[in-house]
Amino acid sequence: MLQTLVCKIEFQGLIHLILITWPTKYRHEIAGIVTEVGSKVQKFKVGDKVGVGCLVGSCRSCQSCHDNLENYCSSSILTYSAKNIDGTITYGGYSDSMVADEHFVISIPDNLPLDAAAPLLCAGITVYSPLRYFGLDKPGLHIGVVGLGGLGHMAVKFAKAFGAKVTVISTSPNKKEEAIQNLGADSFLISRDPDQMQAAIGTLDGIIDTVSAFHPLLPVISLLKSHGKLVMVGAPEQPLELPVFPLLLGRKLIAGSNIGGLKETQEMIDFAAKHNIKPEIEVIPIDYVNTAIERLLKADVKYRFVIDIGNTLKPSS
Amino acid sequence: MLQTLVCKIEFQGLIHLILITWPTKYRHEIAGIVTEVGSKVQKFKVGDKVGVGCLVGSCRSCQSCHDNLENYCSSSILTYSAKNIDGTITYGGYSDSMVADEHFVISIPDNLPLDAAAPLLCAGITVYSPLRYFGLDKPGLHIGVVGLGGLGHMAVKFAKAFGAKVTVISTSPNKKEEAIQNLGADSFLISRDPDQMQAAIGTLDGIIDTVSAFHPLLPVISLLKSHGKLVMVGAPEQPLELPVFPLLLGRKLIAGSNIGGLKETQEMIDFAAKHNIKPEIEVIPIDYVNTAIERLLKADVKYRFVIDIGNTLKPSS
Repeated sequence: MLQTLVCKIEFQGLIHLILITWPTKYRHEIAGIVTEVGSKVQKFKVGDKVGVGCLVGSCRSCQSCHDNLENYCSSSILTYSAKNIDGTITYGGYSDSMVADEHFVISIPDNLPLDAAAPLLCAGITVYSPLRYFGLDKPGLHIGVVGLGGLGHMAVKFAKAFGAKVTVISTSPNKKEEAIQNLGADSFLISRDPDQMQAAIGTLDGIIDTVSAFHPLLPVISLLKSHGKLVMVGAPEQPLELPVFPLLLGRKLIAGSNIGGLKETQEMIDFAAKHNIKPEIEVIPIDYVNTAIERLLKADVKYRFVIDIGNTLKPSS
Repeated sequence: MLQTLVCKIEFQGLIHLILITWPTKYRHEIAGIVTEVGSKVQKFKVGDKVGVGCLVGSCRSCQSCHDNLENYCSSSILTYSAKNIDGTITYGGYSDSMVADEHFVISIPDNLPLDAAAPLLCAGITVYSPLRYFGLDKPGLHIGVVGLGGLGHMAVKFAKAFGAKVTVISTSPNKKEEAIQNLGADSFLISRDPDQMQAAIGTLDGIIDTVSAFHPLLPVISLLKSHGKLVMVGAPEQPLELPVFPLLLGRKLIAGSNIGGLKETQEMIDFAAKHNIKPEIEVIPIDYVNTAIERLLKADVKYRFVIDIGNTLKPSS
């Protein structure tokens, strides 16, 4: 029998996403269909399309939780490889079903396929939340996206949907066509080309920096207009070099942002459905996982693997 | 004959401030009495108490100027050691009088003495502006001030006037009494004391960091609550080490801020007059300047020297 506030979700349609390494933990983006609900569940009924993102729990009583920012609760519980409230370890979506508190379950709109919805629950909210919080969601702004991977390609799509002009900044010249032709970016800068970077100085209102490797900040900061905002969503393990003077001279800021709260995640997925924003994915069977991990390590995926659990993993009895 | 839009200001009552080194330039904070006005001057008349801060010019046509942020105009003209529009070099207040465009002249309220007003025009606005812009001016916030010098002691006074609880963070234990007894800070942290710093983790809504020397940012960032803001107003020449992960986990930000626009400088000085905020100063005669510079280099002043030009420099004929 289920606990009163939880839903059981089966991955019978499809889904969930292969892991990205993020410091030492793994994270998850899971989507499926509700197959059973506890007696006090109010938000969902059997048959609903739902998803679970990076969090399956939080303290529910601190200021962050009160402000619908469970992602900044110091007692939040990650969906994968974290200690759950009952002392067990969370295993995310590596199963044909999971059980979750309804507070941490997201409703997926009808027109958004489960496989497209899943990666939105981490990669999508990770870029959507700072675009909103830092006021980078106003039409007509010029937004930069540093790095064109799982996070970066979502940042391009959301920024375009907000009405921004979008410039992708990348070390890889061969991503230019992809950025502009396939993802809809307006322009492309090769970060290692000093002439291109020089010509773009002071042109951006905001930048989402998705790069987790060590990289120089000065050229990125220089692209900002005065009062511009650079938001880091990648997490370099080594400290970066921060030149303070360029921040002072233009009242610029560097911030970090980490996924989003449950309320905002629902808002994001509704926005994505409304604006037809979907991640680029490669759907794979469960027995392809080891190969997929090897390809991930070589960044050989555009841009997220999604495992079709429902059709390829034998359900438990 | 004066140009139409300028005022001539004589330093007959007193004043101006000794220089602080700021990268390679010198800055100024000057106060005096208007002795002559051009035919189109509207804001001032002969006899008015006025001041001139760090700027004597800007382009007046860019977005920053349009937004009353002349301090972020890329063509702004510093009051000292900069190239003026006529090609001459600006010499600040090292004279018994100066001539300035009325746009860059600040009215000093009656109840604010000239000698107290002068340092507000740089040190005051440098901390007032970011407290306002970054929303750190709300009553009940807990504000940290890193470094207790010319900028830091003004930050304590303005933050207290905004209704904040104020904690000073310093490497010097002997500044504790000064911070709390004389300046009105609520508490004091020795930044080199790990136990004190550990106990204060996650307690501050915002921090004004006034330190121009290289210093570790991680302990400072750690003092912030989630969504807290660290504003640098000191300008270390070397890049600082920026740990990105602590920014992400609490959606914290690091920003820079550089003086303020003319409109906000007037607002600041009116606020200071209303709340009786004055810098701590040591008034000196002009022939003490060389000694004062030597003492400045040893940080041997609480907190600003002010040169009494009016009474100690022979007026030019």
